[in-house]
Amino acid sequence: MKNNNFCVIMAGGIGSRFWPYSRNNKPKQFLDFFGTGRSLLQMTVDRFRPLMPIEHIVVVTNVAYREQILEQIPDMKPEQVLCEPARRNTAPAIAYAVAHIKGTLRQEAIAAGALDKDAPMDLSHAYCDANIIVAPSDHLILNEEEFQRVVRCGLDFIGAHDSLLTLGMKPTRPETGYGYIQIEDRFAERSSNDCQTAGAERPLTLKDCASDIYTVKTFTEKPNLELAKVFVESGEFLWNSGIFLWNMRAICSAFRSFLPDMDRLFRSGATVFGTAGEEAFIQEKFPTCPNISIDYGVLEKAQNVYVLPADFGWSDLGTWGSLYDLSEKDEQKNVTLHCEAMYYESESNVVTLESGKLAVIAGLTDMIVAESDGVLLICPKDHEQNIRNIVTEVTEKYGGKYS
Amino acid sequence: MKNNNFCVIMAGGIGSRFWPYSRNNKPKQFLDFFGTGRSLLQMTVDRFRPLMPIEHIVVVTNVAYREQILEQIPDMKPEQVLCEPARRNTAPAIAYAVAHIKGTLRQEAIAAGALDKDAPMDLSHAYCDANIIVAPSDHLILNEEEFQRVVRCGLDFIGAHDSLLTLGMKPTRPETGYGYIQIEDRFAERSSNDCQTAGAERPLTLKDCASDIYTVKTFTEKPNLELAKVFVESGEFLWNSGIFLWNMRAICSAFRSFLPDMDRLFRSGATVFGTAGEEAFIQEKFPTCPNISIDYGVLEKAQNVYVLPADFGWSDLGTWGSLYDLSEKDEQKNVTLHCEAMYYESESNVVTLESGKLAVIAGLTDMIVAESDGVLLICPKDHEQNIRNIVTEVTEKYGGKYS
Repeated sequence: MKNNNFCVIMAGGIGSRFWPYSRNNKPKQFLDFFGTGRSLLQMTVDRFRPLMPIEHIVVVTNVAYREQILEQIPDMKPEQVLCEPARRNTAPAIAYAVAHIKGTLRQEAIAAGALDKDAPMDLSHAYCDANIIVAPSDHLILNEEEFQRVVRCGLDFIGAHDSLLTLGMKPTRPETGYGYIQIEDRFAERSSNDCQTAGAERPLTLKDCASDIYTVKTFTEKPNLELAKVFVESGEFLWNSGIFLWNMRAICSAFRSFLPDMDRLFRSGATVFGTAGEEAFIQEKFPTCPNISIDYGVLEKAQNVYVLPADFGWSDLGTWGSLYDLSEKDEQKNVTLHCEAMYYESESNVVTLESGKLAVIAGLTDMIVAESDGVLLICPKDHEQNIRNIVTEVTEKYGGKYS
Repeated sequence: MKNNNFCVIMAGGIGSRFWPYSRNNKPKQFLDFFGTGRSLLQMTVDRFRPLMPIEHIVVVTNVAYREQILEQIPDMKPEQVLCEPARRNTAPAIAYAVAHIKGTLRQEAIAAGALDKDAPMDLSHAYCDANIIVAPSDHLILNEEEFQRVVRCGLDFIGAHDSLLTLGMKPTRPETGYGYIQIEDRFAERSSNDCQTAGAERPLTLKDCASDIYTVKTFTEKPNLELAKVFVESGEFLWNSGIFLWNMRAICSAFRSFLPDMDRLFRSGATVFGTAGEEAFIQEKFPTCPNISIDYGVLEKAQNVYVLPADFGWSDLGTWGSLYDLSEKDEQKNVTLHCEAMYYESESNVVTLESGKLAVIAGLTDMIVAESDGVLLICPKDHEQNIRNIVTEVTEKYGGKYS
């Protein structure tokens, strides 16, 4: 049976909170945070390889990062790297990727003689039968096996239901930097639909799949600490992972309903996507898209949104603090990444220098010490939200030299 | 009139207290601390150039540093760099340099036909009429003009008196890391001797010179803080600068009196110094010398020791703290050396990275931040005495890689 799973990897982020380790020309997704030899982007791509051929994976990014992506993923073809001519948040980026996948499938159908080249776009055609996973390129997932299990379960669900499915992470602390999803009813309680095994390597039971899928009551972005504590204690809230699964019909229908102007724009290029004309079309039209997130533009409005709770050691690696929390600590709770280090009367620091270097740290507590490519940052862990402002000031003072 | 001023620059030190900025293969004297483009050694040599031809300057050091010295002082000849085959403190090093100068003068006299090549060594011969300044290579002197004035005054004094003259620095704080000299009587009060101008560019008055020279009551090494405070308040104590002036007769006579075994050893080579045989002689004999300082071995015992008080902005640059004290500070009392820096809620730090780098320091007070050649040290300023121990531990753990 033909593999109809596709993946859209979002890799346009800047990640300035990890400055100076991340830089404008080398944002977070391209960095090997843990010294494993694989960047976050490479780990993300690797995570999807068991689910689909590499040709089914596209990366949406900025043109500045195209070459880095092709270097890091050498078996990816240039046309799989989709470059946004302007930063327009997640909804336009996803619409672009979906249009690209749809256009590519259409061209394949035409080339195979299954479709007339002048046929109008019609989502009910068999060539549009695609399951699409959208995933950030710069998050960390520790339990790959559980990730595979959960995603296969989600694919199975969206293969059977025209729905918009989000993976919701079981919260472990009242994190104020994340979005929260409040769950409502179990899918199985409202529907008798059963879960089909989509030719999977292992049979799925109802318990594996739809019985653990919930409808969504509310979305809440970055609550304050008190609210976050209430959320976590309630047991009703999950972290929004930014990993979405849907089939082609469901996402196209949702764009048509909730972002009709943008949808019209991409449909006007239906016949050029997947052809040599795609890039020129995007160069001209993409910048006219509104700046809007998929969460705000679609998910918070649609009725067929579901969430699949999951627990596979996920972090958005949004801050040095989250990196510290995830990393192995010594007896004094210091985290050392990439470099050698010796600590004297020092506790709970996170220290990263370039590989091969030595840090000797005395009398320091709860600090970030990060050195990379000509810049050393020393900053209290609980001031890390200031790093963005620091980067802005560094750029004002020195131009792009250090940022 | 022939210039008979000579200078012995002591450059064998390791300076581990400035680690990681100083390293085994690049100790303090070879470093450009203030980013002026001149190392402490180069500044030291430059300071003596107005007083004598470069051929009259010798550097005593370890063989490991010979090439660096010849690179830093390109007009110095290899035979002016005297290499100790073993570390034996200042008395043997000075004895070696004095023997070398004496031998060179002797060979010149023989070559000029003024002396028979088999003539016994005789200090009363005219060729032995030399004034010798001994100076460390790794100290800082801010007021070069005043230094010139004081040294010319001292040279004038030792040209007329067979004495051992030390420059005593007027103390500005109760420093516990220095040696102190207690002064006793003014030289002029005990002697009617007048001060002769040794062909100097400017005439010296009695006030300039001998009237400001004192006899010495006591030497005290590294007093505790209470004692140091008493010393400074008394007005009777000066810091021992390690800069000594004497003529050839005075120092040879002092060695004969107070370090007779060592003196005999060097006199046994009287006819080989200044010849091709010198190096082999030193290789064989020097390691048999006792490990003893010139202060303990000679100056604390001799009766003809005098001190010339001076105030030319001197520091032995013994510690990061002394470097901090001497350096220009910003409004938050931070000192930045060599690199760019931005400070947030940070005070009284001393920060040095390699030239061209940027340090961003937040929430840090009274710390040393020093990065050099693959090593970053972060350490409280008042823990700087631990740096030597840290270097020892680093060497135990990593071999010589980082030390």
